[in-house]
Amino acid sequence: MVLKLYLDYMSQPCRALDMFMKMSKIPFVVHPVALRKGEHRQDWFKKITPLRKVPVLQDDNFYLTESIAMVRYLAGSYPTEALYPKNLKLRAKIDEYLEWQHVNTRILSSKVFLIENLKIPLEPLETAVENMEKMLYQLETMFLKDKDFIAGDQLTVADIFAICELMQPTMSGRDIFEGHPKLREWFQRAKAATQPHFNEAHAVFNASAARVQNKL
Amino acid sequence: MVLKLYLDYMSQPCRALDMFMKMSKIPFVVHPVALRKGEHRQDWFKKITPLRKVPVLQDDNFYLTESIAMVRYLAGSYPTEALYPKNLKLRAKIDEYLEWQHVNTRILSSKVFLIENLKIPLEPLETAVENMEKMLYQLETMFLKDKDFIAGDQLTVADIFAICELMQPTMSGRDIFEGHPKLREWFQRAKAATQPHFNEAHAVFNASAARVQNKL
Repeated sequence: MVLKLYLDYMSQPCRALDMFMKMSKIPFVVHPVALRKGEHRQDWFKKITPLRKVPVLQDDNFYLTESIAMVRYLAGSYPTEALYPKNLKLRAKIDEYLEWQHVNTRILSSKVFLIENLKIPLEPLETAVENMEKMLYQLETMFLKDKDFIAGDQLTVADIFAICELMQPTMSGRDIFEGHPKLREWFQRAKAATQPHFNEAHAVFNASAARVQNKL
Repeated sequence: MVLKLYLDYMSQPCRALDMFMKMSKIPFVVHPVALRKGEHRQDWFKKITPLRKVPVLQDDNFYLTESIAMVRYLAGSYPTEALYPKNLKLRAKIDEYLEWQHVNTRILSSKVFLIENLKIPLEPLETAVENMEKMLYQLETMFLKDKDFIAGDQLTVADIFAICELMQPTMSGRDIFEGHPKLREWFQRAKAATQPHFNEAHAVFNASAARVQNKL
């Protein structure tokens, strides 16, 4: 049976995984799970994952949650060398970012998005923006440095996850790259290197962003 | 040059990595970085990692942060099969836990520890305990289920990281396994399977816990 990916394109790791698989030419079908309709809380999805989170990867009767674990699982059977090279030290640097992002790029971008767009009062918006700024500084100075991409001179899965995460706080029209010219250039470079997959994966997100910004 | 691990035994991923490397018979030397003395903020350490976090692994002139990335890097060159098997589906299930723990076992255990022991007012203690309880429920019902260990019938690196994280909120003498008998049995089983390395790695932690509990 062909691989199945349960996802919602509003979710940033879902988009990253979609792009990674398409760019690696891994055949899969998409099974949409509309978070805004609460489909992740329905019984059929709970049977697939009691965690009720997307994405979920199904390979016959094997189900896997956690997008980074999926990247590694797919790398065991499919041609992912270009985006997730086997070279030990290079892969370690990609992994270093993929582990770091959980409580940095992921959480700190997401908080600004949730507070500003979904009006969830997690903390004052100013605090969330301040913490996101610190994260952007670390991403720029400690991970990107003077390289073209996070792990060196080639685009890897680390950049794909990073740009998808960083899209979230831009939904309101916020320019997160103000004061970070190097980061802006890298973002544009990574976005260009992942086309047309980037635009395809972000079609739903962009339509939502247009609606949000029209209301502002 | 032999591998060097910069660590503080009060840090849970440092202890997990120490145990993983010793149990896998990977030769390494320890370079202590005393967090309570602020050694991670000193210039020599900032040169090693601008993130100023432990652990850091040094392999000649190659430096790596993020403990889970280190596990994978070490698995590329050392005999780690027993604790981190190469079987694709089994490893994927270990990876699934290792990715999940970042914003669950890790953060939620750590918050209770920081609020209760270091008196850092992150949020009310009751909120932190409630969130930890939800995490323990998920760990028990979704990851452990009826298995002996997280990934099946053998102890893996997933269990090592889990038990080290869960030690943090026990420092005050708190019994985190009340109402979780299955989790308690697994914890004892994993602890027994990792001796004498568990006790060695926790010697500093246990001494601190004894001081804390004497004051209570």
